[in-house]
Amino acid sequence: MSVKCRKWVLKSHFCGMPKREDLDIVEEELPPLKDGEFLCEAVWLSVDPYMRPYTKNFPPGSSMIGGQVAKVVESRSSNYSVGDLVVGNYGWRTHTVVSDSVPEAAGGRSKLSPTLYKDRESTAVGVLGMPGATAYFGFLNLCTPKEGETLVVNGAAGAVGSLVGQIAKIKGCRVVGFAGSDEKVEYVKGLGFDEAFNYKTMGSMSETLKKACPKGIDLFFDNVGGEWFETVLAQMNTFGRVSICGAISQYNAEEKPKGNYVSQLILGHQLKVEGFIVLRWIKEWPECFKQMSQWIAEGKLKYEETVTVGFDNMFDAFLGLFTGANIGKAVVKA
Amino acid sequence: MSVKCRKWVLKSHFCGMPKREDLDIVEEELPPLKDGEFLCEAVWLSVDPYMRPYTKNFPPGSSMIGGQVAKVVESRSSNYSVGDLVVGNYGWRTHTVVSDSVPEAAGGRSKLSPTLYKDRESTAVGVLGMPGATAYFGFLNLCTPKEGETLVVNGAAGAVGSLVGQIAKIKGCRVVGFAGSDEKVEYVKGLGFDEAFNYKTMGSMSETLKKACPKGIDLFFDNVGGEWFETVLAQMNTFGRVSICGAISQYNAEEKPKGNYVSQLILGHQLKVEGFIVLRWIKEWPECFKQMSQWIAEGKLKYEETVTVGFDNMFDAFLGLFTGANIGKAVVKA
Repeated sequence: MSVKCRKWVLKSHFCGMPKREDLDIVEEELPPLKDGEFLCEAVWLSVDPYMRPYTKNFPPGSSMIGGQVAKVVESRSSNYSVGDLVVGNYGWRTHTVVSDSVPEAAGGRSKLSPTLYKDRESTAVGVLGMPGATAYFGFLNLCTPKEGETLVVNGAAGAVGSLVGQIAKIKGCRVVGFAGSDEKVEYVKGLGFDEAFNYKTMGSMSETLKKACPKGIDLFFDNVGGEWFETVLAQMNTFGRVSICGAISQYNAEEKPKGNYVSQLILGHQLKVEGFIVLRWIKEWPECFKQMSQWIAEGKLKYEETVTVGFDNMFDAFLGLFTGANIGKAVVKA
Repeated sequence: MSVKCRKWVLKSHFCGMPKREDLDIVEEELPPLKDGEFLCEAVWLSVDPYMRPYTKNFPPGSSMIGGQVAKVVESRSSNYSVGDLVVGNYGWRTHTVVSDSVPEAAGGRSKLSPTLYKDRESTAVGVLGMPGATAYFGFLNLCTPKEGETLVVNGAAGAVGSLVGQIAKIKGCRVVGFAGSDEKVEYVKGLGFDEAFNYKTMGSMSETLKKACPKGIDLFFDNVGGEWFETVLAQMNTFGRVSICGAISQYNAEEKPKGNYVSQLILGHQLKVEGFIVLRWIKEWPECFKQMSQWIAEGKLKYEETVTVGFDNMFDAFLGLFTGANIGKAVVKA
């Protein structure tokens, strides 16, 4: 049986805001399965902000990268049976031939645990997937929160920020969040954030931070970068910790604006500033998912997903990341 | 017996390059000693770059701060005898009344160990004092060097940078240093740095770094800040570590130039960037001085001092820090 896959290909590198014509949907004929391989069909596809800067690393003509939850539809592997659900970095494509040894090596979580994902399979690319691990390890390992400390998180209604704020609340922190609409601010307050602001209407960032953080800022989880980075750093307390998860404000900027030099702020407040890519902790992801699913079961951790339906609409879901269209995790139902 | 002390007082806050008229030398009549106190007379006074930004924290009329090596000339303390040498943060002054309990609490190293400082008493404000501890802990604890890694250090001929580079060589690193004159470059090469450049004549900083660090930069010890910070960060390897010790290029800048936002560099290379003030490790200073003096005895660590003679010339010594006048540690012989 020959299977035709449809996939999204980068026609030309993005310049500024991604445009539909930068991408193409093309057909690919997949080879027949060999021993030890299985064929899977995308069920849930993930769009994430990192895809914007990462495409720079690939030549035009490359397939778009990304995670997906897929269902095994044919198998010559003794480890995977038709009907099994798997999660993997297969990219923006409908069908994938997978050698059953590869994803194991890349993280050992290819087959979805039926208990962990029983409520919602899409969480394997969300709260119990890469974005969840990003929030969990990026915050806990790099910010090392202590009870009573004040956290500032931007992109607070997003897939990662919404979880970071809640994990910080579980750890006893005061949490101040920033998001891009009044609806998002309400959502974030509903999650238990102590304060939340619509950064588009709040006026002075510096003054808003001063009022919201009267004891200064101990922890900063930065999804946005740019002006945020220097403005928050200037109000941090001695020995504050900064975890840099993203810089979404910069990804599409054609002319990068200049800012103040920050090394003296880092020096004066004796800050620790770290950037991370969550794959560095991939061996520990399973323990994170166990803890997160327990918090979900206990009602301590809530998550939201914004679902776009249809493989052909992936670009719209992707663009929504940069236009502020989503609350929580953006996923595409194939 | 009544003693008159002479001291340097901040008349008005520095604006731009420090000016002689920002400071005044005034007389102060010291009170007679009480029980538990001793009177000491400055022998070696320290001038250090941190004094420039720190003066902003004190109102005009304050005495200039800083460390000195002093000799006990009168004592009503059972712990200190006439002729003892002490080290303390007494400021820019000829005579000081010290309560013998205070400096102990501030670091437990008020009385100079006669064995440790037998070669040169001035090292108690240099290689075996605050600047030595700055190099030792700021580099080892924050850069956590591994054998074979490449270090970039600027201010390489200075009190701290010259030691950092040598400690890095002891730890098996490749060391690339930057200093502000050909004479300093020769000095630094003589210390065993693998490469050294005169940043005033080298041309493009970025190109020079690329040539000098073909395997990229793993460790950066930044004394200078400003343009250095973003230019070096852009060439760092994954998981690189940056220790921010100073930002001397910014201390006197009246109009702070703008630079590129750096958070995306820290993110992309997964860097750890920390600023520090060496007092955070003060309890461990004695172990540093023991190790450093052993390296000196073994010929592995060399140090230089630029001596200005005369208490009245302290301002000139201080200004020399910002005009690039010194090699090694700048000290004043009272």
